[in-house]
Amino acid sequence: MIRNLIEALPASRIREVANAGIGRTDVLKFWFGEGDQVTPAFIRDAAKASLDAGQTFYNHNLGIAELRDELAAYANRLHVPARPVTADRIAVTSAGVHALALIDQALIAPGDRVAIVTPVWPNLTAMPRIMSAEVVRVPLDCRGGAWSLDLQRLLDAATPGTRMVLVNAPNNPTGWTMPRPDWVELLAHCRRHGIWLVSDDAYERIVFEPGLTINGHAPSVLDLVEDDDRYISANTFSKSWTMTGWRLGWMVAPPEFIAQVGKVIEFNTSCAPPFVQHAGLAAVRDGEPLVAATVARLRRSRDLLVDALATLPGVEVAPPPGAMYLFFRVAGFSDDSLAFAKRLVAEAGLGIAPGVAFGPEGEGFLRWCFAASDTLLLQGAERMRAFLKRALAA
Amino acid sequence: MIRNLIEALPASRIREVANAGIGRTDVLKFWFGEGDQVTPAFIRDAAKASLDAGQTFYNHNLGIAELRDELAAYANRLHVPARPVTADRIAVTSAGVHALALIDQALIAPGDRVAIVTPVWPNLTAMPRIMSAEVVRVPLDCRGGAWSLDLQRLLDAATPGTRMVLVNAPNNPTGWTMPRPDWVELLAHCRRHGIWLVSDDAYERIVFEPGLTINGHAPSVLDLVEDDDRYISANTFSKSWTMTGWRLGWMVAPPEFIAQVGKVIEFNTSCAPPFVQHAGLAAVRDGEPLVAATVARLRRSRDLLVDALATLPGVEVAPPPGAMYLFFRVAGFSDDSLAFAKRLVAEAGLGIAPGVAFGPEGEGFLRWCFAASDTLLLQGAERMRAFLKRALAA
Repeated sequence: MIRNLIEALPASRIREVANAGIGRTDVLKFWFGEGDQVTPAFIRDAAKASLDAGQTFYNHNLGIAELRDELAAYANRLHVPARPVTADRIAVTSAGVHALALIDQALIAPGDRVAIVTPVWPNLTAMPRIMSAEVVRVPLDCRGGAWSLDLQRLLDAATPGTRMVLVNAPNNPTGWTMPRPDWVELLAHCRRHGIWLVSDDAYERIVFEPGLTINGHAPSVLDLVEDDDRYISANTFSKSWTMTGWRLGWMVAPPEFIAQVGKVIEFNTSCAPPFVQHAGLAAVRDGEPLVAATVARLRRSRDLLVDALATLPGVEVAPPPGAMYLFFRVAGFSDDSLAFAKRLVAEAGLGIAPGVAFGPEGEGFLRWCFAASDTLLLQGAERMRAFLKRALAA
Repeated sequence: MIRNLIEALPASRIREVANAGIGRTDVLKFWFGEGDQVTPAFIRDAAKASLDAGQTFYNHNLGIAELRDELAAYANRLHVPARPVTADRIAVTSAGVHALALIDQALIAPGDRVAIVTPVWPNLTAMPRIMSAEVVRVPLDCRGGAWSLDLQRLLDAATPGTRMVLVNAPNNPTGWTMPRPDWVELLAHCRRHGIWLVSDDAYERIVFEPGLTINGHAPSVLDLVEDDDRYISANTFSKSWTMTGWRLGWMVAPPEFIAQVGKVIEFNTSCAPPFVQHAGLAAVRDGEPLVAATVARLRRSRDLLVDALATLPGVEVAPPPGAMYLFFRVAGFSDDSLAFAKRLVAEAGLGIAPGVAFGPEGEGFLRWCFAASDTLLLQGAERMRAFLKRALAA
C-alpha cells in the first residue's frame, strides 16, 4: 500500500532497543543524540515574549529578517570567508534535518547519484532514497577505536555526473572530523565535476582537538567556498544551543539556490513558527557563553567516559575529536550490535544505541551519547563493567 | 543548478502582487489565507506553561500521546464513524501542509498518476510534482459565481492505476464544498481501483450552509471510511483555531500507513515541538467556543462582503458554502488576474490574490480573504468601487 521503498527503509533500531526495555523504569538512557539539559531560560523567555507580543502569524518562507541577518553575521564570525556571507544566502528551516530534506527535494531527480560518508545517522541516507536517488556509501575506517576517511575513496565514489556529495563532520556517530586539507581537495574535485557539496554542520561547534579547529569550530566547506561554488551547509540549533525539541535549523547556500528553495519550503512547512525563530535569534545573539560551557562540559564528559570504559575487558575506544558520542567495540559481544544493545537494556538497565542503526558499516559498534551528567555516565559505565564481569564469568 | 522541475514551479503569484505594493504603506491586505486575529491567550498560555515546565526535548515521531488521543476523540465527536478512530490512526505533523507533503513522499513513486480537483492552493499540486508524479487537474465549473464539480469528470480522470485522488473541500480558493453523495461515489470508485483518496480537510469546520453540513462540519471521507479503505484526511490547526504561525497539523489514516509514515516524519522534521503540541492540545480540548465564534464571524463577513461587492459593475460573485474566500470575476478587468491584482495594489491600495495563483483554471478570477474586520472589509469594498468608477470613466 505504501511505497515499497518506504516500507524497505529500516525503522529506528534505537527504538527497537528501547522497546526491549519496556516495563523497566530504571534504564539509563544514552541512546538518543540529545543532552539532558533543558533549553536555557533566556532562550525560552524569548519565545514567550514573542507569544506575548502576538507573533502567531505566517512569516517569510526563508525566515524572519532579523534571524537571517544574525545567522549571516554568525557565519562570518565563525568562518571568516573570503567574501562575507549575506542574508540572501540564508534560509531558516523547521529543523536541521529538514534543511537536509529540502536540499534533497531541491536537487535530486530520480536516479541521481549521491555519495555519502558512512556510518552516519540514518536520516542522511534515507531522504535521498525517498527522492529516488542512487545512494553510494563511502565507509570510514576504524583503527584502534579512532575513525578516519580515505579521501581517495570518496573522490573515486564521486564520479563525474554525481549529483551530490554529503559529508557530516564532526560525524554522528563516530565523531570523525574532516581535516581542512581534505575539505580543500574535496571541494576542488566537486568544482571540477559540477557536483554539489553538502555539509551537515550540526556539530561544527562541538569539537575538542585544537589542532583540528579553525576559529573554534570544525573545518567546514563554508571556510573555503567562492561565489560560484555549488555548496550548501546545513545546520541546526539543536546541539550548540541545546534546542533539540524546537525543530529549528538553517542552511547557507548560493543566493540563486536560496531564491528557489523558498518555494520548496512553502510546499513543505511554509515557514518556521515566528516565536521559535525569536528563540533562535536570542540563542545566536547571546548564546556564545552557552556554547563554550556546552563544549567544556562535553569534553569533560567524553574524557570521563573514555577513561571509565577503556579499562573494561574487550572495549576498544578512543576519544573522538568532535560530536558527543563514543562509537566503540566490545570484543566478543558487540558483533551483533542490535542483539547486544537489547541485552544491555534487558540485563543491565543500560540504554545504548546499536551501531547498525547507522548503516552496515556501523555493525559491530555501539554508540554512547555522553551528553549527560558525570554521575549518570559513571553509573552507566559501572553497569557495563558489572555486566561484562557477569557475562564473562558465565 | 537546481532541478529544472523546481525552477519551473511558479513562485507565489501572491507575493508578486505584494511586491507591486512595495513602498506603499496603506495597502489593505486580503491576499493571504489568514485572519487578522492573534491566537487566543488560552492557547498561547499552554505553550508558555509547557516551556516553563522544560518541555524542550525531542518527542515521538507521531506526536505526544495526549494530543494523539485528543485528536482521535475529536475525529469521533465530529465524524461519528462506524468504527471509532483510535490514536494509532493519528500522526501529528509540522503543519497541515506538511501532512500533505509527507503523504506525497510516502505514496508517490516517480511517474505515478495523481488526480487533483482544481483550482486549488498551489501547494497541493506542487508537492506531487516534486515527487515526480504525473499530475492530472480536474477543474471545477463556475456558474453565476457559484462553483461545482462534475463528479464524472473526476471519476474519469481517476483511471485504474491512478495512485491518488486529492480533494480539498471546502476548497481554497473557491469555497466549493463536496456534497456527501459525491464523497460516497468517489470513495466507491477509489475502492474499486485501489486508489488512495486523500482529503485536505483544512476548512472542514468553516462551512456556512446547514444543508451541506454533517454534525456541523463539511462532509469528509472520514464520515464514510471502513477499516481496509485507502484514505487519508490531512488537517491543520491553522484555520479552525487561528493558529497559522504555529505550523501544526495532523493526519488520520489507516494504522498500517501511520506506522510507516513515522519513518518519513523522522527523516523530515522528526517531530513537532512539544510546547507547540501542548498548545494544540489546549485548542482541541477547549477550543469549541472559539470555532463557533470564528465560523459565526466568518459567515457575517462573507455576507457583508458579498453584499458590498455584488452591486459593483461587472462583479459576478456568490456566497461560497465554505472556507474564507470570495473567488470572483470582474467583467472587463479580471481576465488577466495578475495584471489586475497588481493594478489594484498600485492604484487602489487594495491587496487581493490573483486567481491564476491557483492554477490556470483560476485565471480570470480574484481571491479575497474575508477573515477580516467589518471596517476593513467595507473599506476594501469601497476602494474597489472607487477604482472601478475611475477606471470605467477613463
